[in-house]
Amino acid sequence: MGRIVVDIMPKPEILDPQGKAILGALPRVGIDSFSAVRQGKRFELTTEGEVGQAELDAARKAAEELLSNPIIENVVRVEAVEE
Amino acid sequence: MGRIVVDIMPKPEILDPQGKAILGALPRVGIDSFSAVRQGKRFELTTEGEVGQAELDAARKAAEELLSNPIIENVVRVEAVEE
Repeated sequence: MGRIVVDIMPKPEILDPQGKAILGALPRVGIDSFSAVRQGKRFELTTEGEVGQAELDAARKAAEELLSNPIIENVVRVEAVEE
Repeated sequence: MGRIVVDIMPKPEILDPQGKAILGALPRVGIDSFSAVRQGKRFELTTEGEVGQAELDAARKAAEELLSNPIIENVVRVEAVEE
């Protein structure tokens, strides 16, 4: 069994209201260490067998065609990870 | 300027209907390589200066107290990343 992680983030020029809301809420839990917060998505895709190039290609295709909206989001990572 | 990535995933025993929906949709774009999909969240926290232990501790605290729901989610990564 293998696993591929896909990370997707809003493009830098796109407003991220969730990230802004989190930034505004951090001081309420006593945290003022950060100047910006962006929120994106992380997907874990599980394969029956080992992860090879075919699985990585399929994950890249899924990331670009199904998991992300290419107008407002970038696929920032497609990578096999250890269990 | 520094950046810390926080990754949060639903706990393994928690149902993930979004992940299930994606798994069901993958064949429609011609992908049948995966046996499971889980969807979580990825946050990027930006610091004014370099990332040190204090910033990592603050990010861990933010992850546990604000960014995640500890009943249904696990913090799977708190890590400084290169720009």
